[in-house]
This record gives sequence, C-alpha cells and structure tokens, in this order.
Amino acid sequence: MRGGTFITIEGGDGTGKTTLIQALALQAREQGHEVMITREPGGIPIAEAIRAIILGTENTAMDARTEALLYAAARRQHLAEKVMPALRKGAIVICDRFVDSSLAYQGYARGLGIEAVWEINRFAIEDCMPDLTLYLDLDPEVGLARIEQNGDREVNRLDLEGLAFHRKVREGYKLLESQFADRFVTIDAAMTPAQIADNAWQHLKPKLASR
Amino acid sequence: MRGGTFITIEGGDGTGKTTLIQALALQAREQGHEVMITREPGGIPIAEAIRAIILGTENTAMDARTEALLYAAARRQHLAEKVMPALRKGAIVICDRFVDSSLAYQGYARGLGIEAVWEINRFAIEDCMPDLTLYLDLDPEVGLARIEQNGDREVNRLDLEGLAFHRKVREGYKLLESQFADRFVTIDAAMTPAQIADNAWQHLKPKLASR
Repeated sequence: MRGGTFITIEGGDGTGKTTLIQALALQAREQGHEVMITREPGGIPIAEAIRAIILGTENTAMDARTEALLYAAARRQHLAEKVMPALRKGAIVICDRFVDSSLAYQGYARGLGIEAVWEINRFAIEDCMPDLTLYLDLDPEVGLARIEQNGDREVNRLDLEGLAFHRKVREGYKLLESQFADRFVTIDAAMTPAQIADNAWQHLKPKLASR
Repeated sequence: MRGGTFITIEGGDGTGKTTLIQALALQAREQGHEVMITREPGGIPIAEAIRAIILGTENTAMDARTEALLYAAARRQHLAEKVMPALRKGAIVICDRFVDSSLAYQGYARGLGIEAVWEINRFAIEDCMPDLTLYLDLDPEVGLARIEQNGDREVNRLDLEGLAFHRKVREGYKLLESQFADRFVTIDAAMTPAQIADNAWQHLKPKLASR
C-alpha cells in the first residue's frame, strides 16, 4: 500500500523534540533517504482554518468534545493532503506530535478518556498509523528548568500551576506505551542530545532496513 | 438528568419536514409545553464557523472523513450550547435533521460506512440521543416533482443526476430504522400534511405523557 516510513515524535516542552527531529532527518538523508519533516496543521489551508477555530480567543465557549473532533478533522486533512502522498512516494515522514498527543492531553489529562478519543482518531487516521513513535520522556520540572536555562522564555506562574497537568500528561503517555507496544518507544530525555539521537536511531534503523 | 424531550425530524427535500415541525410545535404549545425549534448549526458561532469551512467553495480538496468529523464537531457544539440547556429546562426541542442525516448521507450513500460515522457521532452526542426521530419517507422522484410543482425552484440537471444518490440515501434511512428501532419511526410522506401531522402526533403523544 505505502512505500514510505511514518515516524512520529512525542514529548512535552523542553524535551528536545526539534533537536531530535533535525538529527534523525540529517542521518536518514545522509543514507540517501528522502525525508519530509512536518507537524500539524502543516500549512494545509483546510487544516489551518480548523486550527484557527480551535485557537480563536473569541471561541471561549468551546466544548472539550468539539475541540477533540476539530483536532481529529485537522489531523485527517493534514494526513490526506501531505503525509499520505509523501508516504506513497516512499519518503520517510517525521511528524512533530501526532495522535498520541490527543490521547495523552485530551483523552487522559483532560479526562475525555483515552478510548473515546482513540475512537474518533481511528476514523481520522484509518490505516495510516505511524510505523514508529519516539516518546521523549522527562520529568516536567526538568523540562521547565531547561526552558528557563536556555533563555527561551521566562517561566511564569501558569507554567508552575500547570505542573500537575503535565505530570498527568506524562502518566497518559506511559499508558500509551503499553497500549501501543508494537510501535511506541520511550526514550529517556534526561540524556544528552547526542545520546538521545543515537538511541532513537537504533529504533529507526530496523524500520528502514525492512523497506 | 434531563427533563425535556428531544425530537428529530429526518427526510429528503420535498418531504414536508418544515410543515410537520410547525404543526407539531403548534400542537405542543397549545397543550402548554415549551417548544424550541432548531437546526444545525443553529446560530452558534463556533458551529457556524465550522460549517463555513465545510461549505467554503475554496475548500475543494476536503477529504470525506475530514468533512464527517467537522459535521460531528458542529453537531457537538450546537448540542452543548443550545439543545442540552433547553432540555435541562424541560423544553421540547424539535431539531430539523440530526445524526441520522450524517449516517444516511455520509455513512451509507457516500460510502464511509454507517458504523464508522456512528462511532464519531457517538462521541459527539454522548448521552444526548433523540427520544424520538420521525423520518418522512418518500420516493425521491415524488419529492422532486413536489418541489417543481410548488414552484420552489426549477428542477435542474443536477437534481436528476442526483436521483440515484437520493435513492441510496433512502436505503440508508431504511437501515437506520432497524438499527435504531427504539426511537426511529418512519412516516409515509405521500400522505397529506394533515395526515402526516396526525400520524406524527400519535408517536409524540406517549413521549410527552411520560414526562
């Protein structure tokens, strides 16, 4: 059906997702693979329009289920217009966050239920599930300290209040690890960027060898 | 949980949905019930914004599953902001088209599958299913002739080409009748408006008596 390889990267702020994606793309390209890096909504006009509704500050009355359905709709369109065509051409597609973000954040941490959010995303994703998901696991307090240390921005009151929420998100990801054991790999994001990239590549390599 | 009664009206163009809704609302109000008539997206800003994406002529690349998820999202928001509050106040809510339209049109006639479209709508609707659904059943050719006869508009080439599609929609509704036998009632829309209203009232009456 598809000749490509679909990789998704998951993890909270400050875990090093962007750095890892760049490292993996470089290494894969050096080996002659075509690589496409993307993230939802990925510049797809319909998906961007849907995201604008989700993020619209005037839409304060948005129901949590409406929001989950909109995320699934934007995901579907990004898949149909950008990811699936690249996979059909045989590319390696590396996507910054995918379905597991919805499951961990909305399904588990926000309390809609992982199973319920999974149902609507199964409809959105159809047979286009990732071949491999790399989850960068880190204590949220450490992630927060990193953001502050890197001078990306000042840590504010909301970040601190949000610690309990981010701990819950982490619990959610741990549940996904057992539910999707065939594709879901947890990587200790307390390691150095080079160690993380090495570790990730060991998991990616066999997927590329079997192409 | 809810004190009100939720009625949905289904059927193709030219079957007399609007006439029936007016007749039922009048009769229920005469008996002292509070009645709210609505239809999706029902003037709810978030739901209207979602519909604008669905209907946007610039969005020609929209995937069928994206569309189904957007309909479900607009449905959820209309329910959460308008229908549920009215039901909690004890009103009779009469809604012109609801989930069965998605199931018959997108699930069956467009081929996404009734079960698949039902899954995402179950998430959207949660426990707010209709107490009674009245489906006005009519041969699509007769409906088309009525529209022409009433001078509503001229029947065009697209209407005629669409006959096969509308026959498929009708088949879809027949499948829903057996799937949702507890709430789904088919009414022969070849009858006069007065007969249709009488017939519909016989089904509505026991629902109101048990309130």
